[in-house]
This record gives sequence, C-alpha cells and structure tokens, in this order.
Amino acid sequence: MGAPPGYRPSAWVHLLHQLPRADFQLRPVPSGFAPQEQEYQQALLLVAALAGLGLGLSLIFIAVYLIRFCCCRPPEPPGAKSPPPGGGCVTWSCIAALLVGCAGIGIGFYGNSETSDGVSQLSSALLHANHTLKAIDHLVLEMVERLGEAVRTELTTLEEVLTQRTELVAAARGARRQAEAVAQQLQGLAFWRGVPLSPVQVAEDVSYVEEYRWLAYVLLLLLELLVCLFTLLGLAKQSKWLVIVMTVMGLLVLVLSWGSMGLEAATAVGLSDFCSSPDMYILNLTQEETGLGSDILNYYFLCNQEVSNPFQQRLTLSQRALANIHSQLQGLEREAVPQFPSAQKPLLSLEETLNTTEGNLHQLVALLHCRGLHKDYGTALRGLCEDALEGLLFLLLFSLLSAGALATALCSLPRAWALFPPSDDYDDTDDDDPFSPQVPPGIQALRAVAVIYLSP
Amino acid sequence: MGAPPGYRPSAWVHLLHQLPRADFQLRPVPSGFAPQEQEYQQALLLVAALAGLGLGLSLIFIAVYLIRFCCCRPPEPPGAKSPPPGGGCVTWSCIAALLVGCAGIGIGFYGNSETSDGVSQLSSALLHANHTLKAIDHLVLEMVERLGEAVRTELTTLEEVLTQRTELVAAARGARRQAEAVAQQLQGLAFWRGVPLSPVQVAEDVSYVEEYRWLAYVLLLLLELLVCLFTLLGLAKQSKWLVIVMTVMGLLVLVLSWGSMGLEAATAVGLSDFCSSPDMYILNLTQEETGLGSDILNYYFLCNQEVSNPFQQRLTLSQRALANIHSQLQGLEREAVPQFPSAQKPLLSLEETLNTTEGNLHQLVALLHCRGLHKDYGTALRGLCEDALEGLLFLLLFSLLSAGALATALCSLPRAWALFPPSDDYDDTDDDDPFSPQVPPGIQALRAVAVIYLSP
Repeated sequence: MGAPPGYRPSAWVHLLHQLPRADFQLRPVPSGFAPQEQEYQQALLLVAALAGLGLGLSLIFIAVYLIRFCCCRPPEPPGAKSPPPGGGCVTWSCIAALLVGCAGIGIGFYGNSETSDGVSQLSSALLHANHTLKAIDHLVLEMVERLGEAVRTELTTLEEVLTQRTELVAAARGARRQAEAVAQQLQGLAFWRGVPLSPVQVAEDVSYVEEYRWLAYVLLLLLELLVCLFTLLGLAKQSKWLVIVMTVMGLLVLVLSWGSMGLEAATAVGLSDFCSSPDMYILNLTQEETGLGSDILNYYFLCNQEVSNPFQQRLTLSQRALANIHSQLQGLEREAVPQFPSAQKPLLSLEETLNTTEGNLHQLVALLHCRGLHKDYGTALRGLCEDALEGLLFLLLFSLLSAGALATALCSLPRAWALFPPSDDYDDTDDDDPFSPQVPPGIQALRAVAVIYLSP
Repeated sequence: MGAPPGYRPSAWVHLLHQLPRADFQLRPVPSGFAPQEQEYQQALLLVAALAGLGLGLSLIFIAVYLIRFCCCRPPEPPGAKSPPPGGGCVTWSCIAALLVGCAGIGIGFYGNSETSDGVSQLSSALLHANHTLKAIDHLVLEMVERLGEAVRTELTTLEEVLTQRTELVAAARGARRQAEAVAQQLQGLAFWRGVPLSPVQVAEDVSYVEEYRWLAYVLLLLLELLVCLFTLLGLAKQSKWLVIVMTVMGLLVLVLSWGSMGLEAATAVGLSDFCSSPDMYILNLTQEETGLGSDILNYYFLCNQEVSNPFQQRLTLSQRALANIHSQLQGLEREAVPQFPSAQKPLLSLEETLNTTEGNLHQLVALLHCRGLHKDYGTALRGLCEDALEGLLFLLLFSLLSAGALATALCSLPRAWALFPPSDDYDDTDDDDPFSPQVPPGIQALRAVAVIYLSP
C-alpha cells in the first residue's frame, strides 16, 4: 500500500516541457527549471519576444493591406454609388471575426477563473501546511510545559512525602529524570520553530499578485468585449465615428493581446519546466530558505516508503520513557500509598498528566507524519501545475483568438466603413433594423429617383 | 489551536435554506434535510412544479400574444408594401433576446464545468478516504502478522535456548504474552474491516451519474447555441424556412429549459438543506450503513477538542506493552547473551521486529487520527456545497435567461418573419450583407418606381 496518489505531471506539462528553448545567441538551453540562470531567463524572454514578433508582423500586415486598399483601388466610374464588389463579404468577415473575438473572450473568462482557482488552491494548501506546522510547535510547547510543571510540583511533593524511604525517593527521582529526558526529546520535534520562512507570508504574497493579475485580465476582457460589441453596434448603425473610435481601441487591444500572449507563453513554458519535476527544485529552495536538514525535507516532500521518518527515534524514545514513568508510578502507587496516604494525590495527578501527555504525543505523531503535509504539497502542486497551467493555456487561446480576430477586424473595418453611405444620406436613428432596408421604401424610392435623375 | 478551518455553509446555502417550503396541501414543511419523509419530498416536487407552472404560463403568454398578433392586425391599405410600424423594433428585440440567450449559454457552460469540478472533488475525497481506511486495515494486518511470526519463531527459539534458566524463560514468556496482547489490541483498531460500505463504490456511483448529467447539459447547451446561431442566420438571410424550423426547435428548447430549471431548483433547495447542517445527517446515514459505533463516527466527522480519540486507550496500551517488551528484551540481552551466545540472533531479530512495529504504530497513529479523514470529509463537503451548488446556481441562471430569451424570441420571430419580403422578391444569396441595403440602389429604385406607378 503505497502513498495516496499524489501529483503527476499532466500531458500539457510534458508537451510544453519538450519544446526546444534557446538563448539570445540561439544556442539550445536545457529545459530544466533554473530561473536564476541567465541562459534560462534568456530562453523565457525569447519566448515572450516571439509574441512581440507576432505583433510586429500583424501590424505590418494590417498596414500593407490597408495601404494597398487605399492606394490601389480600381478606378470607379464617376458618380457610381454602387458598393464595390465583395463589400458584403468584407462586412461579413468583420462580423465573423468579432464573433470569434467574443467566443475568445468567453474562453478568456473561463481561463482567468481557472487560473485563479488553481492559485487559490495553492494558497489554501500553504495556509493548511502553516496550520499544521504551528500546531506542532504549539503542541510541543504545551507538552513540555505540562511535563515541567509536573516535575516542579507533583514530583517534588512526592519526593518530600517519600523522603523517609530512600528506594521510593530513588524511583521518584528516576521518574523525574525520565520526564526531563522526554521534555528534552520533545523540544527537538518542534522543527519549524525559529524558521525564517512563513508559509502564510508566501500565501499572502501569491494571493496579492494573483488578485492584481485577475483584475488586469478582467479589465482586458471587458475592454475587448466592449470593443467587439460597440464595433458591431457601429456596423449595425453604420455610424462612422463609432467605427473609427473602435478601430483605434481595437489597435490598442491588439497590442495588449499580443503583450499578454507573450507573458502567458513565457509563464506557461516556465511553469511546465517547473512542473515536470518540481521536487528537487522545491527541496533545494526550501533548504536554502529554512536551513532545515535534508532528511526532514526529503521526508515531507517525497513521503514514500524509502524515506524513513526522521523523528521516529525521538518519538520512540519519548514513548518508551513515558511507558517507563507509567510503570514506575504504578510501582510507587503499590508500594508507597499504603504507607504514605498523602502520596496518593500527587501520584493521581501525575498519572493524569501522563495520560494527557500520551494522548498529545499521539496527536504529535499524527501531525509530524508526512501524510498531512505531503498532501498539502500535492494539493499546492496540483493547483499550480494543473488548474493554473490549464487556465493559462485557456488565456493563451483567448489571446491568440483575440489577436487573430482583431487583426481581421482591423483589416476589414476601414473597408466596411468605406462602404457606408455618406453621413448626410443616413442619420443615426435608434430603432433601425440591421436586417432590413433602413429607410422606408417610399423615401428610398424618392432617393433612388433623385439619384437616377441627377446623375449625368 | 483548534482544528484547521473546515467546511462552513456559504451565504447561498443560508439564503436557499431560508426559503419557505410547503407540501401538496400547502402546509409549511420544516427545512431540515429529510429526503425519506414524504412531506419533504412533496416540498421539493412543489419547487420543481413551479418550473412547470412557469412553462405553462410562458406558453399561454406566447400563444395569446401570437393569436392577438395574427387576428387583431390593424387593417392595411391593400397593396401597401411598407412594413407595419415597429417592425425594426421587433427584429431588434429578437436579436437582443438571442444574444442574451448566447450569454446565458456561456454562463451555462461555466456552471456545468463548476458543478462537474465540485462533484469530482467529492469523488476524489471519497477515494482518498478509502485509501486511508484500506491503509489502516493493511497496516494492522501487517503488524499483527509480523508480531505473530516473531512470537512463533524468534520467541520460541529464545525459550528453547534459555530453557536451563527458568527466570529468563519467564521473562521470554512475559514478552510473548505482551506481544500477543499487542496483537489483540491492534486487531481492534482495524475498524473498517468487514464494513459493507465502500467509499470507492459511492465515488464510482457519483461519478457515473455526474458523467451523464454533464453530457446531458452539454448537449442541451449545444442545442440551444445552434438554435440561437441558426435563428440569427435565418434573420440575417431572411430565410423563412430556417426561421420556421428554428421556431419549432426554440419551442422544444424552451420546454427543455423549463424542465431543467425545475430539476435545478429542486436540487439546489435540497442541497442547501443538506449543506446547512450536514454533520448529523451524514453521521446517522453512515451509522446505519456501516454499523460503526457513534464514538468512532463522531470522532471522524466532528474532529474537535471535545471528542476524544476512541482508539487512544488501545494505542496507549499497545505502546506501553511494546515499551515493556523492549525493556524485557534489553534485560534478556544483558543477562542471557553472555551465558547463551546463541540467544543473540533471535534477540536482535526480535528487537528489529519491535523497532519496525513501533514505526508502523506511529504510522497507524497518524492514519487513525481524525485529521486526515476529517479533511477528506471537509473537501467532499466543500466540493458538493460550494462548487457544485454554485455551479447549479449558474445553471439555474442559464435556464432562466434562456427561458426568457426563448420566450421573447418565440414572440418576436413570427412577427419578424411576417416582415420578410416575399420570397419571390429576395432569393437567399450567400454573400449578402446584413447591415447594408440588400439590393443595389439601382434595382431598389426600379422597384420603388414600379410600386409608385402601379399603386392606385
């Protein structure tokens, strides 16, 4: 019966981890997670720079397309009012692009919430681990105090009562020595005392960063949603100024989309490297930060049959000592109480203390066992490497879709806009129907007649 | 230092739990979760029936609206081709309704995935609990076997070797008795052995039901998405047959939406009653299913300072007995080995067994402690009462939005359809632009002139 199923790298982690990495001189970089190494940093920056390249290319493409459209228009017959061929296709493609953008926004909202879920799983695991560590400290302190109190009061009273019989005093002294030894052993178990690393602090830092990340994405998503909806409205109402404003906003959102894509891609690649084998990195980092022995850290981070419990010996010695005290006290009760009735009260009180201490020791054994803390570690890793990474990939998909959609829309919008009738012909009315002719046939007929008669 | 923060009913649970409930005779029903009681079942059925009432009302409203529209149309001047006033408004409201429906579908997808997440959290908590329970059984069996083996082989050999000195044989016999007592005590700790309830089976059943629920919702959502998109397409292309088919499909989806809303509302209300105070219900149910003592179940389900560990005494006794065996073996080693060197081998082997058993006992103490199983219980509850309930409320919102959107669309579609130009005027062309007049101004002008000249 092995450990319960813990964290396993997902297929996405393997896939991203296998992508080749290169530094600025395009020399291959090993894909092990090493954020402190300059080459690795360069590899991640290069991944982010790919998005910058994409932004540049798409801006050049849009510019070239629009310049070609503006300057190389086929000559129109003067006075012809009919839209150039393919005008409907341009508007349709613009609408389709905006709808794809809206679908991408839905995906983005989902990805953002998924990432947030994963990170909050990580924080709550850290908080739970902190609770366990603090509980260990607290319990050890309580037990040591309780034993010290028993040694100072009950055992001293007992020795004073039994002072006439030296062999009984020796037994009481033996119990005192054992109790002091137990207190000594127990103090070694509070391994987190004085450690400078606080999981609460880490959890708070992570939550703080995540809060702003979440908010930034929500704002970006809402901005893009507004741009999409208002552009659709502008197309529906054939409102030139709305379409122009939205074209400019669309350009801004395009830049933001590519920027976020670069960040997401670099983070996803880095995260996949971390997630493909997190144990060694986390182990070394925690060792540096806490100064704890590698036996303790191995025990908690690996928690399998091969790693023995580093507290085993202390716990066993404490338990044996407590059992010895128990049998000594029982011996004293048999021998001393008939002769010294006043010894009964401290003896009963000592036995109660002993029982409580044994109960607390069981709780301590449970808290110290790697199962609980390792489960928190697994939860934290699953939150980060499954939910958060998955959410990040959804955000990447959102950025891709929105970059594509916005580029298409930016190419189409000026062409669709050029198809709008001149603004003195059509006013922006409120209840016009996008799917039927905008003007009642009577007026249209008059307008058409005017056009026919006035055109040379 | 209390227990780590466990499950707490959310605001939604409180809100839903406070709604009044009534049975079929409209007598108030207490809102405690009691699915086996007829009155409570009636209360939930009544909640579901409210959705049926909503469906009936909305169908009546649509029918009345459409009959009024068909039969009480204001008399049109014969031959007038202009659409009735407010036609643009009708199409716009239809499009707005369909867009609201699409937004609802997005919410539905999110809710469905959230519910699925919650239920999978529940299953994985059940599987983890099962792992712990099986590990306890397995560990107890292993320890008992190891001790039995030691008693049968090493202790027998030891007694045979030491047969010349009766006081040493007596010490070995004492160790044997203690080891047998420990094995006896340990067997009482495998509390889940022979229990007919299997958490794996429960988890599998839950996952099975959830899989079909998830699939059904995905199909419903996709169906509604298709209806919305094809209706929009039908409106854009002014295709009568598409709009008619989609009206019929819309009616079907309306019925399905109200039906799913009834199910969701009843489930959400029932779940909120369960989640407002799950402990007692789960405790009673588990007691019935497993036949375990209430001390054990209280310990695991409540896991606070007030409930004492029901295994405490057995564990303490086992540990004391192991400590005694240890000191007896040490005594034997001191006394016997100088005289009987052949006693050294079984003694060393016994001490090794003893050390392993003490290590295993620590693991057993950790497994038996309520912390681990109670955490699984909290995770399962959080999955069900936070994520799954939240997802259910999102699904309820989806159903509400889609019912409203479809009812509006069903009212508007026949009116919008009546506004379409006769099909002999407009063919369904592929590249028409919904946002610009469909027919080139030239043809429109001719048509208008024809209308002006032909009308009396």
